[in-house]
Amino acid sequence: MTIRAVEWNTDSIILLDQRLLPKKTEFITLRTIEDVWESIFELKVRGAPAIGITASYGLALWASQATFDSVDKFKKELSVKKDYLCSARPTAVNLFWALERLVSSIRNTDSIEQAQAQLVEEAIRIDLEDEEVCRQIGEHAWTLLKDGDTVLTHCNAGGIATAKYGTALSPFYLGKERGLSLRAFATETRPVLQGARLTAWELQNLGVDVTLITDNMVAHTMKTNSINAVIVGADRVAANGDTANKIGTFGIAIIAQALGVPFYVAAPLSTIDLSTKTGDDIKIEERHPDEIRRIQNELIAPTNIPVFNPAFDVTPSHLITGIITEKGVVKGNYEEALQALFT
Amino acid sequence: MTIRAVEWNTDSIILLDQRLLPKKTEFITLRTIEDVWESIFELKVRGAPAIGITASYGLALWASQATFDSVDKFKKELSVKKDYLCSARPTAVNLFWALERLVSSIRNTDSIEQAQAQLVEEAIRIDLEDEEVCRQIGEHAWTLLKDGDTVLTHCNAGGIATAKYGTALSPFYLGKERGLSLRAFATETRPVLQGARLTAWELQNLGVDVTLITDNMVAHTMKTNSINAVIVGADRVAANGDTANKIGTFGIAIIAQALGVPFYVAAPLSTIDLSTKTGDDIKIEERHPDEIRRIQNELIAPTNIPVFNPAFDVTPSHLITGIITEKGVVKGNYEEALQALFT
Repeated sequence: MTIRAVEWNTDSIILLDQRLLPKKTEFITLRTIEDVWESIFELKVRGAPAIGITASYGLALWASQATFDSVDKFKKELSVKKDYLCSARPTAVNLFWALERLVSSIRNTDSIEQAQAQLVEEAIRIDLEDEEVCRQIGEHAWTLLKDGDTVLTHCNAGGIATAKYGTALSPFYLGKERGLSLRAFATETRPVLQGARLTAWELQNLGVDVTLITDNMVAHTMKTNSINAVIVGADRVAANGDTANKIGTFGIAIIAQALGVPFYVAAPLSTIDLSTKTGDDIKIEERHPDEIRRIQNELIAPTNIPVFNPAFDVTPSHLITGIITEKGVVKGNYEEALQALFT
Repeated sequence: MTIRAVEWNTDSIILLDQRLLPKKTEFITLRTIEDVWESIFELKVRGAPAIGITASYGLALWASQATFDSVDKFKKELSVKKDYLCSARPTAVNLFWALERLVSSIRNTDSIEQAQAQLVEEAIRIDLEDEEVCRQIGEHAWTLLKDGDTVLTHCNAGGIATAKYGTALSPFYLGKERGLSLRAFATETRPVLQGARLTAWELQNLGVDVTLITDNMVAHTMKTNSINAVIVGADRVAANGDTANKIGTFGIAIIAQALGVPFYVAAPLSTIDLSTKTGDDIKIEERHPDEIRRIQNELIAPTNIPVFNPAFDVTPSHLITGIITEKGVVKGNYEEALQALFT
């Protein structure tokens, strides 16, 4: 079964509450912009694209309920509501980008009714475009895979982080649509356990043969099981192909190279940042020590033990066999090839 | 502070209850052989040497309390009690070895009083010999380190698994004794978290500057912090130097080699098994899936998600910079050099 993290329902938004996964699969109905703000703020929705889509529908929902006596007043309040939604997750670039796109789409519109219709249309367009980008990534991924392959993935670059399909998990959805089989190994991805909580759940739900391992089992799993490829997502790809992604990715890439397993990054063009020259220019955020000292509030280490908790790491491009984008797979000479995607 | 996991107290045994770590540091007093059996069975004591030592003192304790009218009856019952203690942990080879050694030590003894004294002496000897082996490993480790170095370790090959000092952690104890500084990074070691629960606690307790990381942070930590060496313990070293150790060791060895960090195995001669030709001959035990699905009883993944849970992995000898034994550091040409240790 394919689950959409967020769906437009004309007078409401249906949202998967991802905080409850994997224990409960619960969909909630958002009827007001306040509901939407709260869902984003409380991390019921996660993944940059899914957050952008939810916020877009949220702004369109507000607009469709609004009554004003002039289009200027409507537009002024729309801008206020945009800022309000942005405040739910101030670090989410995608959220700003999507809402700005909505506001821009009605810049030349003179009637409230027309603006209301256009905002809904634009939100739907953002949703469908993301779905298409992810589907294309899956298509290109399949040029690297064959029926029956086993793929190891890390963290969750899945359908529930996007409109549909996901990035690294897109080939699993396309495989299901076409009757092609793809086995998966999912790493649990400490400290926040996105692999155990989300990827394992998502792939099991999709009917994929998925096996969960801890992060330190990658080398032994590659040696003793036939892993045909690693596919991971990306937080940011630099101009030279160096890729920032969830902590642990770098180690998996080193192990994959040592054991002869191809290592692919699935990255939509929106994550490729040509203004970042190399991985050295990417600042690695460090997160709260208690993420490591505790697991779901249970203390697993001495209370005040010093902790190093980097959220991401950088995989140098020489360890990356290929970067799978919606425009095709880029291999080798990343500097030129990535640039060419944008021209 | 140096803590001994087990200590002889003339009419009782003082044991650190390791199940309560790191939340509580609690010592219990064992006054009967039944107390000892229960402690081993319930995993209050762990680590092959520490289990062997505890059982030895347990048998000596029983003997010192026993009253018989003939030495033959005493010896017959001693053998029954030996089997009884062995049944507390039937897979622990060290337990059998230590108790067999005790029983053998009084084979030619004619008086009960003399046998009682000899059994206590032999148990103390086993304890002190283990301490000396561990101390020697620390001595030889220091020939590879210098004051101020930072060492990354995995799992717990520490003092609380042995008489004192531990194997991989021995250089930290010797450093403390001599005013030499050694910083540590400890991996948490999923699924059972021995690094977070035990190593972090043990080194913090010893006053070592120790930083806890999750298992997937090794590559990023080596790249961004100056790690001078990796030192890990061993469950079994094959004749060619291939080393079975806690799951995750193999991946760390690959990453260390890729990033130019020396990778050492601390292994007493008792873990070197020349009858095992290579790592391929070592069977890797798979443990219960719930160790991965749950952390301290808290469900972190879908209830019935398939799991691959190997307890150990094998690091091929070409990734090992040196094997640190009580007789010195063995490097390169392991086949010959390991053999030579026993001649």
